Amino acid sequence: MSPKITVELLRQLRQAMRNTKYIAEPIQAYIVPSGDAHQSEYIAPCDCRREFICGFNGSAGTAIVTEKHAAMWTDGRYFLQASQQMDNNWTLMKMGLKETLSQEDWLISVLPENSTVGVDPWIIAADQWKNMSKALASAGHSLVAVQDNLIDAIWMDRPTRPSTQLLTLGLGFTGLTWQDKMTALRSKMAERKISWFVATAYRVHREHLQLDTPSKVELSIQTAPYESVFTELQAVCASLGPKEKVWISDKASCALTQVIPKAHRSPIPYTPLCLAKAVKNATEIQGMKMAHIPKGTVTEISAADKAEELRSQQKDFVGLSFPSISSVGPNGAIIHYRPLPETNRTLSLNEIYLLDSGAQYIDGTTDVTRTMHFGSPSAYEKETFTYVLKGHIAVSAAIFPNGTKGHLLDSFARQALWESGLDYLHGTGHGVGCFLNVHEGPCGISYKTFADEPLEAGMIVSDEPGYYEDGLFGIRIENVVLVVPTKPKYNYRNKGSLTFEPLTLVPIQAKMVNTDLLTQKERDWVNEYHRQCRETIGAELERQGRKEAMDWLIRETQPIA
Amino acid sequence: MSPKITVELLRQLRQAMRNTKYIAEPIQAYIVPSGDAHQSEYIAPCDCRREFICGFNGSAGTAIVTEKHAAMWTDGRYFLQASQQMDNNWTLMKMGLKETLSQEDWLISVLPENSTVGVDPWIIAADQWKNMSKALASAGHSLVAVQDNLIDAIWMDRPTRPSTQLLTLGLGFTGLTWQDKMTALRSKMAERKISWFVATAYRVHREHLQLDTPSKVELSIQTAPYESVFTELQAVCASLGPKEKVWISDKASCALTQVIPKAHRSPIPYTPLCLAKAVKNATEIQGMKMAHIPKGTVTEISAADKAEELRSQQKDFVGLSFPSISSVGPNGAIIHYRPLPETNRTLSLNEIYLLDSGAQYIDGTTDVTRTMHFGSPSAYEKETFTYVLKGHIAVSAAIFPNGTKGHLLDSFARQALWESGLDYLHGTGHGVGCFLNVHEGPCGISYKTFADEPLEAGMIVSDEPGYYEDGLFGIRIENVVLVVPTKPKYNYRNKGSLTFEPLTLVPIQAKMVNTDLLTQKERDWVNEYHRQCRETIGAELERQGRKEAMDWLIRETQPIA
Repeated sequence: MSPKITVELLRQLRQAMRNTKYIAEPIQAYIVPSGDAHQSEYIAPCDCRREFICGFNGSAGTAIVTEKHAAMWTDGRYFLQASQQMDNNWTLMKMGLKETLSQEDWLISVLPENSTVGVDPWIIAADQWKNMSKALASAGHSLVAVQDNLIDAIWMDRPTRPSTQLLTLGLGFTGLTWQDKMTALRSKMAERKISWFVATAYRVHREHLQLDTPSKVELSIQTAPYESVFTELQAVCASLGPKEKVWISDKASCALTQVIPKAHRSPIPYTPLCLAKAVKNATEIQGMKMAHIPKGTVTEISAADKAEELRSQQKDFVGLSFPSISSVGPNGAIIHYRPLPETNRTLSLNEIYLLDSGAQYIDGTTDVTRTMHFGSPSAYEKETFTYVLKGHIAVSAAIFPNGTKGHLLDSFARQALWESGLDYLHGTGHGVGCFLNVHEGPCGISYKTFADEPLEAGMIVSDEPGYYEDGLFGIRIENVVLVVPTKPKYNYRNKGSLTFEPLTLVPIQAKMVNTDLLTQKERDWVNEYHRQCRETIGAELERQGRKEAMDWLIRETQPIA
Repeated sequence: MSPKITVELLRQLRQAMRNTKYIAEPIQAYIVPSGDAHQSEYIAPCDCRREFICGFNGSAGTAIVTEKHAAMWTDGRYFLQASQQMDNNWTLMKMGLKETLSQEDWLISVLPENSTVGVDPWIIAADQWKNMSKALASAGHSLVAVQDNLIDAIWMDRPTRPSTQLLTLGLGFTGLTWQDKMTALRSKMAERKISWFVATAYRVHREHLQLDTPSKVELSIQTAPYESVFTELQAVCASLGPKEKVWISDKASCALTQVIPKAHRSPIPYTPLCLAKAVKNATEIQGMKMAHIPKGTVTEISAADKAEELRSQQKDFVGLSFPSISSVGPNGAIIHYRPLPETNRTLSLNEIYLLDSGAQYIDGTTDVTRTMHFGSPSAYEKETFTYVLKGHIAVSAAIFPNGTKGHLLDSFARQALWESGLDYLHGTGHGVGCFLNVHEGPCGISYKTFADEPLEAGMIVSDEPGYYEDGLFGIRIENVVLVVPTKPKYNYRNKGSLTFEPLTLVPIQAKMVNTDLLTQKERDWVNEYHRQCRETIGAELERQGRKEAMDWLIRETQPIA
């Protein structure tokens, strides 16, 4: 991986920062967030502005360029990758380390007095704008909205916006029609006395939404050109009665949020749409279970392309959930590694192989990581793998009261690593959508997310602790798990209890486990999990007549002692 | 415990809410927080306004009275106690339960349109004011500051403010002079370019602070009458240069905070004073250790008075840390129970006894809870006690990386209870001051505290999981523990690891333990802990020639198998 050369680009950007064609007065710093106007996780190539300016292509990071400095903030998953992808015009700001300055504090430390900092208001969230603006103001600087994006201004070969086909799903996959969902949303709005709810889409499916032939007046949908959202929303707000309220996500763009006058604005961290996606209905749970059979059998193959090829042969395959992470040896320590021709390592008998892959099927979404060794793992590799496995089991088998937030389970995943002085610098789990985003709020399992919603039966999260040794290897064990009710011995204050049911059914390589480090309870968990893999996946392999795969499955699911 | 009759008091308060002697316009609701003007935890009798108006005398709770309703919010520690102490003019609002409305939402649901809500600005914190004010405004109501406290206005026999003797400590106890501390504070202020730091005291010790004979100009202290704080601070703020900043805790009173113009105000969650108190210096750590010997031997006695008597005979005794919780059988389920003549139960061979007591010694502060049975505990009592013990050990023996916040350890204390469907409705631990407050931020171990500071070597917290069965019994096992560095097998990214060292050395009653439920590691922990009790406390008992106590200690610290 060689770094992107950015001397010329930075020169051009700094010129644009002084160009009155874009701004009335020169700005002394320009912020380049990583997102698009819709807070998408996987953004289109034309929106990869932060990657364009600094070279770093991970999923999370913010670049800031001043007249003299250029710095990029990212988290522990990407320290190694970012340091390899950026040239020495850039300072890597390692978030989460005590000594690392926040973006605000760094700006205050490098800017001359009374500076102006610019940002595109369509790609910065309203709450981020507010915090940044406040911090800068307190030090005598100001934050301004620059309507023309300055990266776009210097990006000569910027790709056009992609236009893949829109897909509609039948009731057999969704469990509810869009009309049902709209009615449910309206009843939530009525409960809180909300008149309008803001959500935007780049495109819609005319026929599916019956735009031309509405069945009922209250389900008749009007659309407006994408570019007119600002003026349309302004018109709506101008017509509001004095007590009328508009719901908007507090993660929506600053530009859109500020159109709504403060007195009418009712920002919420998790919209009813978000919560409806998080708690899966019976049809969706069934779909998610189906999506994990037998599409889960990727551990028998040895490369990401092969995994994709095999996945694509399965019924209802739509595409990958995310670019596969397929890494050998030291590449595994780059937490969000993505193989490229120049970094490609050959699988061998001497190095650990990590494969993190998932697919979107019409009935559901998968995301699984397995770490394996095709030769003889070292004692240290087995030891650390076993600590990670203990953490994975501690979360997966945890029983906890209704109303518990996911972040309270995060330390269970780390306990065994901590006892040996080890840790990993990422969260333990994310919410998973049902044929929606593979990473989706409002639930999750992380030491850093405190605004998460309590876990509820029907929610789906990943359970993926890891351990990474820079320059040597990476280990991660990831299942997608469903939150289900459980009945332990007692029922304190009738609160009821929850636990997890693994949806992912892929054997965990026994060769990597130092069974001496497992308790009897943990051994029982592994054996019961492998029994389920054999039963559910085995039945499907048998039906498909895949003898070789079946032999492999039986070999890999032998009970451990 | 019979409830306080509040019909007449509520009538008088509602009259005051309409009386133009106190307010220009009638108010429709009045908020009575539980604190005083200094955010003290243990408030003087003259400040117990919330207790006066509703009868509930727990440490935490807020009462709100409207023209038609009266409601009081408190947390899980106090549900039982509050329901017993309040008459049926009051609605108990159980905080932490999903169905319980917040104070803001409740007010919005009961108030007529365009209402005015009043509160004493000297006893509501600035951040609470801000949230309440915002929520009310969004629903068309307003929050106003009522300068005359309306409870004081109707409180005929209000006690006078107490005036106990001020105590000064020698260098042998503090490790640092006040001059050293002032210099350290000033250097923290210089680092952040802060000109003023606001902290108030009701009284000072003239001689100790050398008010009349200052040694150096920069250590010369000017004092002003307590009542003039508002005008004095106004004068300071009027003299500030345009860029000068004033530090004030964001928990300071709304009245004091709002004196400082927003442009000059720099609110911080944890002042340098707060952090300096939390991280103990070597002298303080030594003092805290001494304070736990042999003053810890309370489990041999059978009542709180006797405990106090015994404690008071010890060297350097100053007073109790808090009123002892001494409860038998069902009273134990009232988490912050305090024995009163009308509720007093006799210790017996049939019921569990819980004693939570602590003392202030000049060298340190103690806080310990032990739960015991003088006859034969039932299998259920032993089972739940053992789950609590497992939780206590899981926290006390936890190893975790430097930089870990205390709340990430909270679930370790609950894991064993959760597995059986049980839980407790309070946090697991609080910071402990060194001959300062027994409950003190900024560190703690709780599922609900997210603004806590990371644990650091030298901090001291309590470890006190519990289990409470309404109408039957209460169990809690509490030690005070010191955060210490530890060296596990590895050292990931040179972060270093921490663990806890128990300062409290009081045997845990083996009779209450179902040893079958303990792992070998947990049994080893108990035996090692008891060995330390015997060694440290035994040596002191021997020195004091206390033969009977020594026999008891040896009996109670026999290894368990």
